[in-house]
This record gives sequence, structure tokens and C-alpha cells, in this order.
Amino acid sequence: MVQCEPVHSFTYDALPGRVVFGSGVARTGLAAEVERLGASKVLLIASERDTERVRALTAPFADRIAAVFTAVREHVPVATAEAAREAAVGTDAVLCVGGGSTVGAAKAVALTTRLPILAVPTTYAGSEVTPVWGLSEDGVKTTGTDPVVLPRTVVYDPELTASLPPGLARASALNAMAHCVEAFWAPRRNPVSSVVAEEGVRALAAGLREDDPEQLLLGAYLAGSAFAVAGSGLHHKLAHVLGGLGLPHARSHATLLPHVLAFNAPGSPDATARIARALGCDDAVAGLRAVVAAAGMPTGLAELGLRADQLDEVAERTERVVPADNPVPVGGGAMRQLVQRAWEGER
Amino acid sequence: MVQCEPVHSFTYDALPGRVVFGSGVARTGLAAEVERLGASKVLLIASERDTERVRALTAPFADRIAAVFTAVREHVPVATAEAAREAAVGTDAVLCVGGGSTVGAAKAVALTTRLPILAVPTTYAGSEVTPVWGLSEDGVKTTGTDPVVLPRTVVYDPELTASLPPGLARASALNAMAHCVEAFWAPRRNPVSSVVAEEGVRALAAGLREDDPEQLLLGAYLAGSAFAVAGSGLHHKLAHVLGGLGLPHARSHATLLPHVLAFNAPGSPDATARIARALGCDDAVAGLRAVVAAAGMPTGLAELGLRADQLDEVAERTERVVPADNPVPVGGGAMRQLVQRAWEGER
Repeated sequence: MVQCEPVHSFTYDALPGRVVFGSGVARTGLAAEVERLGASKVLLIASERDTERVRALTAPFADRIAAVFTAVREHVPVATAEAAREAAVGTDAVLCVGGGSTVGAAKAVALTTRLPILAVPTTYAGSEVTPVWGLSEDGVKTTGTDPVVLPRTVVYDPELTASLPPGLARASALNAMAHCVEAFWAPRRNPVSSVVAEEGVRALAAGLREDDPEQLLLGAYLAGSAFAVAGSGLHHKLAHVLGGLGLPHARSHATLLPHVLAFNAPGSPDATARIARALGCDDAVAGLRAVVAAAGMPTGLAELGLRADQLDEVAERTERVVPADNPVPVGGGAMRQLVQRAWEGER
Repeated sequence: MVQCEPVHSFTYDALPGRVVFGSGVARTGLAAEVERLGASKVLLIASERDTERVRALTAPFADRIAAVFTAVREHVPVATAEAAREAAVGTDAVLCVGGGSTVGAAKAVALTTRLPILAVPTTYAGSEVTPVWGLSEDGVKTTGTDPVVLPRTVVYDPELTASLPPGLARASALNAMAHCVEAFWAPRRNPVSSVVAEEGVRALAAGLREDDPEQLLLGAYLAGSAFAVAGSGLHHKLAHVLGGLGLPHARSHATLLPHVLAFNAPGSPDATARIARALGCDDAVAGLRAVVAAAGMPTGLAELGLRADQLDEVAERTERVVPADNPVPVGGGAMRQLVQRAWEGER
């Protein structure tokens, strides 16, 4: 017999959005999606290095591209946002083709103009299905949530992610895996975000195992969806602090994840049971360690350049921002122990 | 290792909507949800026999109830819709408390007035999370889909369904189970509707087994959500034909379901694997038969009053409307065989 968790009360604000998923749909279906939005003067946002590929994808509706913005920057500096908004004057929709920074620029435009976004992701970042925007100025990142920045349509085409460098693809996939795992205990979790997260773990694990861009992209979509609803918890708070110290984003996520799951597991039997089920193993922590190791990621933060003398600071800064309902309390030195283990890569 | 199905291309139009779920939330949270919609002149729709309970629930915001409509009728006759719309003049939102017919009346109002709906279901019908409306005139039912009839907010309170008569509760829960099972092969299925449907099977089976209104109501919500996205297939087409012949709606669904699953199982290994997983058994068809039997439902349509001389007609009328991509072809006499087995209750 399957045991069901008791149902707790929950509130769930489901997000709208159209998803078109399939190999080749960016080539064959993008014009129809632009048409469906009723857009005739499109601002195209894509990074400089993607120019050739993006030109091929947009050729069938080149007459509808009214403006192009390619000066995309990581973390969306305010100056970048302003330049993109300038380019948007007179347009009626934003088409972005690229990774997280490209979607971020499109969101910065939508935030002030309310233009609809059509997003075509080329990585596993997941931000194309969230209403979260971010802007940076003088090294300080401001984030917020606004339904107007949620893309109206997302076209997921595994042909576009198939060309990601393997190491980057694996790191990006494990970043998505972190969204799924965290969704089980994040503040706005609910029964729907949890099943979506579980299926995300399943697809990402299969995609990593079989090197299958379709499963990886499906998993990234599910991960973004679960994260958009559930929000972020201990794992992302810790990863954010490490990011501020200059550690690499996706690889930090991958390295941290098994340590955070091991820490939260005793307080979150539902999460561990579901993750184990999705990984097809008995022990979620061991299963996740195996996935991270097979992807060639470090087991400890020391390998990523974090110094021993930074551990106190990391623990203190994280402890202050961890949600109060984290499944395992982080006080009384527990957070410091977690950071120590994650640094050493100790099992 | 978990085997993942290959990812096929799909299109998914996710539906927005706010869900507030929990024991007692109709008593404690309804006023806040009315406030959240910015409604100050509410049309309350509830059936006559629910008057006392509904008065208690709406007492905290009685000053915001501007009109009341209680002449709710099954299948929403056009005359009922018109009377409800009359009652809606001058109001700014519709609050419906009740089963499918009550939600149906609210949707008829929203269809022409675009008023937002706040729904408080008291059965497991699930229509509160779908954009499908229905109207009947001279015995003919017309249905359609329009986003304006999708309730903005749904308040699910298991305290309200706990008082359903047990036989009705079980039949209604199995009707919801049919939504979940059918969602695996219905025309607009996608990876998200499938995981939601799977979790619905899990919750409904647990709720039936443990007589737990929380699991049943959660399952009904998940079932309605999956159905709203995936649409209807062979099972519902067959059930609709039987309904036209006067067979009882929910009990027909319950009786048909294992037969339809047995028929489609050879062409839908993903559905059977997921249903078996959700039921915690090895054989989905046997597991579902056990659930239906334990709920005291008949195993054959003969017991529900269908006559042997009606079987040809049922098979012919259903065959014409079954979606072309049903996992198992219904031509060449296959549909007639299915109807025969469902009639006999043969295993």
C-alpha cells in the first residue's frame, strides 16, 4: 500500500503560461507563436555570440522584427535594462532567445513596458517560467516578483540545448535539480509543486544518465515551474551567499545539494521518499551523491576555492535568511556544521 | 533504475487560479478571499437546501452579499442561467458554494458578465478548476470552453465535504478517479497533467481506503486540474453516451473505469505503470477493480439498468466521437466488445 502524507493546508497561486515543447519547434513553430501573440513589431533580444543561429530561427518572420538588442550582460545591470527598454520603444512584444541573462533582459523590459515576452531558452536556467526579475547596480542585486515579467509563451526546443558544452550542460542541469530538491521544503510548496518537482528529478536524472537533451530540457522546465511556485529555501540561501563570495553559480549548487539534502533529510521524510522514488534508489542522499559524482562535480566547496577562514561568515550570513520552517533547525551550530561538511566534501 | 518514457512534443496552456485548501478555511478564510478579489457587492449562488450552512459561512461578510440566487438546477437550463444573470445585475463578483450545478450556474453568469468567480466546492465534481461551461435546453446540453468562466479563487475545505452521504461521496470520488485515469491518454495530455493525474489517483485511492475527506478533496482538486488541461477521451465519451440514456452519472463512471483501463492498457504502458505505482500494486487494472469493488460499485452496466438491446447503439455512438489517438484502436468491433464486457461486468 502506498502511504500518503497527511494533507496540510496550503495556498497555491497557479501561474498561467503557454509551453510549446519539442525537437525542432523553434525552427517550425516560432512564427506561429509570434502570430498567436498578435505581435507585428517584435524586439528581439539575444546575445551577440548567438547572432547567426538566431537569425536562422527568426528568418520566417524577419518582417516582424522591428528592433534587435544584443548587449546582454549577466545579472542585468541597470544600464543594460535601460538600453533594452530604449530599444523596445515602438515594439509590441519581446522575443528572447538565450540563457538566463537574455531572459533577464526581456524581463527588465516587460517590468516597465508590460510588453508580452516569448522566450526560447537555450540553457537549463528555468527563469523563463518564473515571475522573478533581477537587476544589478554597483554589485548589488535587487530581485522582485511581478506577474508582468512572466513570459506568455515559452518554446522549448532540445535541438537548441544539444549544442551546450557538456560540462556546462551538466552543471546547468544540476542547478535545475537543486530547484526540484529545494521545492519540497521551500516556503510556498504545495501538492502540485511537489509532484512537478519529483517528475523534474526523474527527468533530470534520466537526462544526465543517458545524456539526453530532451529529458534534460523537460526537467529544466519542471524545475523552473516548481521553483516559481514553491520559492527558495536553505539551499538557495546558502548558494546565494557563496555566489556573493564569487564562487561559480551552477557548480556551487551541484556541490552543495547532497550536503543540504543530507542535512534536511531527517526532518523531511516526504522529500527523501519522493527523491529516492524519482532516482529509482532506496537512499535519496546516496542517490543524489552518485548523480553529482557521475556528472564530474566536486564533492566539497574547498575544491571550488572557498577558504576555511570564510566558513564562519558563510554560516552566519546564511543562518539569518533561512526560512523559519526549514525541516531541520539551523540554530545551535547546526548551520556551521553543514557548511563545514559541504566544504570538506565529507560524507 | 527508473525508466523514463521518451519525451514527446507537447503544447501546454497552463491555467491560472488561486487555491486555498485546508480544514476550516471556508469558516476562517472566505472573507479574506472576497476582500482579495476587491468584491463589495457579491452575488451568492447556493442551492436552497444549503441555505443554513451557507449563511453561517458568509456571516463574517454579510454586508458584502448584494444578491442571492438559490434556484440552482442540474445541467444549468438556459432559463436558470438567465435568472441567475438577472440576479447578478449590479454585483461585482460571484460566490458559489455547492456542487457541480452551483458552479455551473456561476459559470453561466461569468460567461456573459465576465464577473470573477470565487468557488467553494462541497462535492468532488472538479468543475471549479476547469474553464468548461455547460447549458441545457430542451434536453440538449451545449458545452464550451472560455477562460472567463474559470474561477479566480477556489476555497477547498474538507469540513464541507465530510457531510456528504457516504455512497454519494464514494461515487463522486470515483468520478474524480475517472478524470485522473483518462488524463493519461486524453488529447491535450502533457508531462504536467500526467503527474498531477498520478498524484490524484494516489490521493483518491488513499481517501477511499481510509475514508479521509482531506485526501478525497485533494484528489478531486488534482483530478479536476488534470482533466481541465488534458481534456476527455474514450472513457468520458462512453460515459456521456450512457448519461444521455439516463444512466446515473457518477456510478456509470465508476463501473466503466476498470473496463476502459483494461481496454486501453495494452496501448498505454505509461498510464498503467503510473496508475499501478499510485495504487501501490503491480497490476493497474486489478488494483482499480479492487478500489471500485471496495467502494461498493457495480462491476457491470447491466446492474445500472442498461439493456442488452442498447449495446449496439452505445458502441456505435461512442465509436464516432472517440479521439483518433486513443491508445488502442476502437474500430473493427473492438468498441462493441468493450461495451459488452462493461455491460456484463466480465473480468
